[in-house]
Amino acid sequence: MVFDIQDNIFMLAGPVKIHPRVLKAMNTPSIGHRSPEFSEVNRELRELTQYLFQTKGDVAILTGSGTAGMDAALSNLLKKGDKALTINNGKFGERMGQLAKLYGDATELVYPWGTPPDLGEIEEMLSKGETKVLAFTHNETSTGFTNPLPEISKLCQKHDVILVTDGITSVGGIDVPVDKLKIDVCITGSQKCIAAPAGLALLSVSERAMEAMYDNTSYYLNIKKHVKKLRDDDQTPYTPAVHLHLALLEALRILKEEGLENRIKRTGRVAEACRAAVEALGLELLPEKDYASNTVTAIKYPDGVSDKDVRGRLKEEYGIIVAGSQAPHKGEFFRIGHMGLVQMRELLATIGAIEASLAKAGYKFEKGAGVAAVEDFM
Amino acid sequence: MVFDIQDNIFMLAGPVKIHPRVLKAMNTPSIGHRSPEFSEVNRELRELTQYLFQTKGDVAILTGSGTAGMDAALSNLLKKGDKALTINNGKFGERMGQLAKLYGDATELVYPWGTPPDLGEIEEMLSKGETKVLAFTHNETSTGFTNPLPEISKLCQKHDVILVTDGITSVGGIDVPVDKLKIDVCITGSQKCIAAPAGLALLSVSERAMEAMYDNTSYYLNIKKHVKKLRDDDQTPYTPAVHLHLALLEALRILKEEGLENRIKRTGRVAEACRAAVEALGLELLPEKDYASNTVTAIKYPDGVSDKDVRGRLKEEYGIIVAGSQAPHKGEFFRIGHMGLVQMRELLATIGAIEASLAKAGYKFEKGAGVAAVEDFM
Repeated sequence: MVFDIQDNIFMLAGPVKIHPRVLKAMNTPSIGHRSPEFSEVNRELRELTQYLFQTKGDVAILTGSGTAGMDAALSNLLKKGDKALTINNGKFGERMGQLAKLYGDATELVYPWGTPPDLGEIEEMLSKGETKVLAFTHNETSTGFTNPLPEISKLCQKHDVILVTDGITSVGGIDVPVDKLKIDVCITGSQKCIAAPAGLALLSVSERAMEAMYDNTSYYLNIKKHVKKLRDDDQTPYTPAVHLHLALLEALRILKEEGLENRIKRTGRVAEACRAAVEALGLELLPEKDYASNTVTAIKYPDGVSDKDVRGRLKEEYGIIVAGSQAPHKGEFFRIGHMGLVQMRELLATIGAIEASLAKAGYKFEKGAGVAAVEDFM
Repeated sequence: MVFDIQDNIFMLAGPVKIHPRVLKAMNTPSIGHRSPEFSEVNRELRELTQYLFQTKGDVAILTGSGTAGMDAALSNLLKKGDKALTINNGKFGERMGQLAKLYGDATELVYPWGTPPDLGEIEEMLSKGETKVLAFTHNETSTGFTNPLPEISKLCQKHDVILVTDGITSVGGIDVPVDKLKIDVCITGSQKCIAAPAGLALLSVSERAMEAMYDNTSYYLNIKKHVKKLRDDDQTPYTPAVHLHLALLEALRILKEEGLENRIKRTGRVAEACRAAVEALGLELLPEKDYASNTVTAIKYPDGVSDKDVRGRLKEEYGIIVAGSQAPHKGEFFRIGHMGLVQMRELLATIGAIEASLAKAGYKFEKGAGVAAVEDFM
């Protein structure tokens, strides 16, 4: 079969599979972004975004990618002279560090990709009492690794440090109770666990963060303006991506119909099944198992098996899209995204196709063992 | 008739009517933003964006509103200490001034809404030899006014000043030949003359602008990174709004099928017809007639006629959407957007409905005169 871009099993770590109802919601003629009809869309979006973040506090929706949300958080909270601490154990944690260094004075704690941060080292840094903001990536899409959010949150609370959490590939797939964990700014993206099209960044913003943000460090990405305009007028300060708002609304409605708790549970089950299949096939996860992500699984290629053997064949011959690895680890592992709408059925197909590809590449294993491991979770 | 959000004549000054082909283009399952298939989308988008801007130079496509594009231009070109000059004779020129003051040291030349700038005053300022950047809004959507771009461009060339032009509601509707007029950064938005959904900002960037931009003043909106990634890899540095890229591609294809020159001519004819109707009805344009915009017409309410009488009735009873006026002139005038796909047929309906509304409000005029004036242009 030649790859068909309109008809495939889509297992990227974002963008992800979009429900037909969400695509249909975009098939709408123009709506004025200052009309009462669109304000009603935003009103419901605001409530559903609070539901998503498990917060009673403020939220904002920016037209831009997840990186725009990260940029907004750090450019609003940091000026030169403000000390920040970031954790770099993957590509997106590295990005957090780049942003914090650009806007403030940041120290970056660096750990190898896929390994946890040293909590003692973090505590040592925070206990100096100079840090205004700690910023980190909760779920590292780049490595299928989840950082210990509750523990990091505890340290921030103890030392009265503002906590910025990139929850782009965790919120809606892994439990991120923003109010309970006292996350000051949490960022997520529309095209991940929410399963809407890419192009919107969603943020939760604590009262403390609102007070700590500068008024004059950013314009388009000024979070306070976005928060207030949404809270007070059901609008955005600048023209939003109207059709993406309509899509996001439908995707969040679908999420609420399933229930946040159920979605998180389902995502976790699919992830467990995926990891069981990896083990049954004698393959190795990239991250330490205790830190393996529930939204994306990163799997090392065994000796003698190339990215083309598996990822290439999955796409070109079996019509299944999985993700590769990013620089500086290009070609060393591949990643299966299983957030949003992905169910056991898609995982079955993916694991089966991986088995077939591994067999063709000469890798020795018990055929069917991976799929059987998934079945045990069904 | 009660207003139907899915079925109306949509005459805003952006967002505008979207062609069904463009909506259909968005009805597509997810595509990986790093896939060869999406690179092909971006390759064609890059060529069509150059066509739109009439440039052989660099272009960029940002996920964000037109304001994100304005923010990008000024935050990349200005640091504190860099002198900028801006022209404020409408809401968006005012925004340009806010941005320039935020990022650099800006002087703002202020003129009443709807009146032209004093070219002598601009020349005087530029001749001091201190100005790095002149930034202005070509077409003031807020007032239906077009600033004299060629004359301003000449002054910038004479004094070797970088020219930033907000062409958000002009590019694709009014002639903006970027290379010929030596515009260093020109910005437009997807939801105006291109007639795609809102959410993307398109920029043209001259070699001189590329050299003058800082590397470390912005992150998500770093123009050089966007330009290079699109030029060298047919990609964007961060996840773009994939579905909006697909929509933009179809909208630009439609524009090219009509031909840029033809679209500009058609837009101009519709505008002329609209102004003729305004005159025939004894109404008054907001801006001086020589500066009246070809993409949006702003019309003062006559004494005794309220915004509700016309704009309210048009929407609620006749299913036709026109724009109101923005603060600080709320309620004083209304605006008809006639860019993108708008043809004489939509203008006929709009003018006819305005006549009916004016008559009901007790305004005295010759019924049918406005529509007849439009017919003369058909």
